[in-house]
Amino acid sequence: MVAHRSDKATENMQRGEVIIADEPTPPDDNRRTCDAIIRSIRPIAKEIQPAAQRKIDEKTKPLGALGQLEDLALQMSLIQKRLDPVINRKALFVFASDHGIAAEGVSAYPAKVTGEMVKNIIAGGAAINVLCRHYGIDIRLVDMGVNADFEDNPLLLKEKIRRGTRNFAVEEAMTPAECTAAAAAGMNAFLREHTLNSIDIVGLGEMGIANTTSASAIISVVTGISARQATGRGTGVDDKGLARKTTVIEKAIQFHHPDPRDGFDVLRKIGGYEIAGIVGAVLAAASVGCAVVLDGLISTAAGLIAFVINPEIEGYLMSGHRSVEAGQQAALTHMGLEPIVDHRMRLGEGTGAAMAISAVEAACRIMCEMASFDDAGVSKNE
Amino acid sequence: MVAHRSDKATENMQRGEVIIADEPTPPDDNRRTCDAIIRSIRPIAKEIQPAAQRKIDEKTKPLGALGQLEDLALQMSLIQKRLDPVINRKALFVFASDHGIAAEGVSAYPAKVTGEMVKNIIAGGAAINVLCRHYGIDIRLVDMGVNADFEDNPLLLKEKIRRGTRNFAVEEAMTPAECTAAAAAGMNAFLREHTLNSIDIVGLGEMGIANTTSASAIISVVTGISARQATGRGTGVDDKGLARKTTVIEKAIQFHHPDPRDGFDVLRKIGGYEIAGIVGAVLAAASVGCAVVLDGLISTAAGLIAFVINPEIEGYLMSGHRSVEAGQQAALTHMGLEPIVDHRMRLGEGTGAAMAISAVEAACRIMCEMASFDDAGVSKNE
Repeated sequence: MVAHRSDKATENMQRGEVIIADEPTPPDDNRRTCDAIIRSIRPIAKEIQPAAQRKIDEKTKPLGALGQLEDLALQMSLIQKRLDPVINRKALFVFASDHGIAAEGVSAYPAKVTGEMVKNIIAGGAAINVLCRHYGIDIRLVDMGVNADFEDNPLLLKEKIRRGTRNFAVEEAMTPAECTAAAAAGMNAFLREHTLNSIDIVGLGEMGIANTTSASAIISVVTGISARQATGRGTGVDDKGLARKTTVIEKAIQFHHPDPRDGFDVLRKIGGYEIAGIVGAVLAAASVGCAVVLDGLISTAAGLIAFVINPEIEGYLMSGHRSVEAGQQAALTHMGLEPIVDHRMRLGEGTGAAMAISAVEAACRIMCEMASFDDAGVSKNE
Repeated sequence: MVAHRSDKATENMQRGEVIIADEPTPPDDNRRTCDAIIRSIRPIAKEIQPAAQRKIDEKTKPLGALGQLEDLALQMSLIQKRLDPVINRKALFVFASDHGIAAEGVSAYPAKVTGEMVKNIIAGGAAINVLCRHYGIDIRLVDMGVNADFEDNPLLLKEKIRRGTRNFAVEEAMTPAECTAAAAAGMNAFLREHTLNSIDIVGLGEMGIANTTSASAIISVVTGISARQATGRGTGVDDKGLARKTTVIEKAIQFHHPDPRDGFDVLRKIGGYEIAGIVGAVLAAASVGCAVVLDGLISTAAGLIAFVINPEIEGYLMSGHRSVEAGQQAALTHMGLEPIVDHRMRLGEGTGAAMAISAVEAACRIMCEMASFDDAGVSKNE
């Protein structure tokens, strides 16, 4: 249930204060929350790019020899508007939800696995828990619409909109009110944590059986690639399953005709609650100047919707890893992003983002700690 | 100066004990050290592969969904002969030396940069220092043959064979005695540290102006690719410099005719002292069951020589990162290795290896800490 938020509360939230009340939030308030956050996003500090690039080029190494680490150091400098970017707090949110489209037999796993995996994550046993522990990343799980109940836990943020989206093969996945509620919930989940303890970089992962079907459909609509090009095997469907999944996506797009220039229209018709939550978290993070690391296919599809909603987020976005799902590449190309790691992973949960966050941290430390030619008395090239 | 080692001492060293004396080591002793280490290498524990694979497949994720992390978890299990591989101590050695071949104008940087960069590393200001601090890796620098003098420092291991190799455009880079002394020094550098505090994974980097010329020549000889295919821009030579470098390599190979089946012959004729040091460290690490992470072009060329000397090391080897130098790929293909990270880096020092070590550590933690379907009560696929 999304917390009630008055106009005053929306203003407070923009200043980083969050007020939670018990009544359900009126739909207009969620719309206002979304609008306020979306409008408050400012581009990164491109004006310091020459100074940041000069600092990188003065480091004791051949020009450009640290490759992508240099790009990340530069990006973090522009995001933080300082030549010594730092990462004090790293966070990762796993948004979870069930999907009505699972009824079409598009996944290799039964839908109940969403809830079972949420419990696994809360208990600390999933891959994303292990990686977050390894890299010192604070993990939070946001129940956006899982068809199961969970006991209270400090890790768990309860924002359940409904027990799974509607089946978008036959109707729109969400009502307009549910869609803005889900996006606002994602914003609030991020901003609440950020207010408690400032987050410098956030990874965004997900859990939701059948959500690659939704993500592939979104990427097909927004980038214009065919459903066939956008669709992969997800958790591992066979050839027959892949053909069925592709047909489901093709028919759904023909049926709903989502407007590729209207992020909320796409999200509502063929999206998912956890995808909406990520959209909200991306926009909220960008609005407070926090770097955003996307994960695999689903997280990237959500990033793509956020990008359609406000392209100013571009400078805050990073791609955590290259998924084996081909649709992801089309979305990355659309946003001009290059993945940071590539371990042939296809798990989601934020696992690729977690690994990438450590590389971004290394890039920041390079920027801050590595000696210049002058500092070290090293000769330059001839 | 390589420490004197009696036959008794060589036996002790094999048991992990190292005895250091003051007199220079007679060449025969170095040869015996090398032979003993090379003969003591045992293949990894392939017999536990089915059990290790089963454990990985039982984890709460679609089959194979963690991609390369699963391969690394499996490899570490076989190296450590246990289903719960652990990394307690991570170390990285930077082997440094000057090269006579620098006189041929094959580098964009003056030769004195080798010594200057060694001082930078000892002072903690180089990229490799920053990355080792970030990933909690113990760094050691081994002076194998730098044309400069350094003050004592706990980081620095003094194993200087000579102030730079001979110019292999006109004569063999090393004498046979220097070559075995350098390889034995690399073995001893690793084993000494390992004896003090057991090393579970070691990264091997280097510093040495002009050493990409040596590395490309080695890769051309061993893999059979042409000098042109094996040669890249190193620290950044221009088109004219690249053409000159390629010609130098072609002529040197014609002149020396190194035997591609004889690692020491290749090493002696066209190698470098720091390359020989890495060869020794690879062999020594494999002999005590320590995982080895190679770095870029030069480190990989050294790994290739170690592989020629004893192919049993194969199971202990990992490729830290994909270098932008094309020759590296040929060497990796020859050894059947897949790089762990790819950040378009071309710095050397061990920077790619350092980043990869953290991923290997993550893989071990996945193997040890991630829940199985049974542990977590998660349903399997249908």
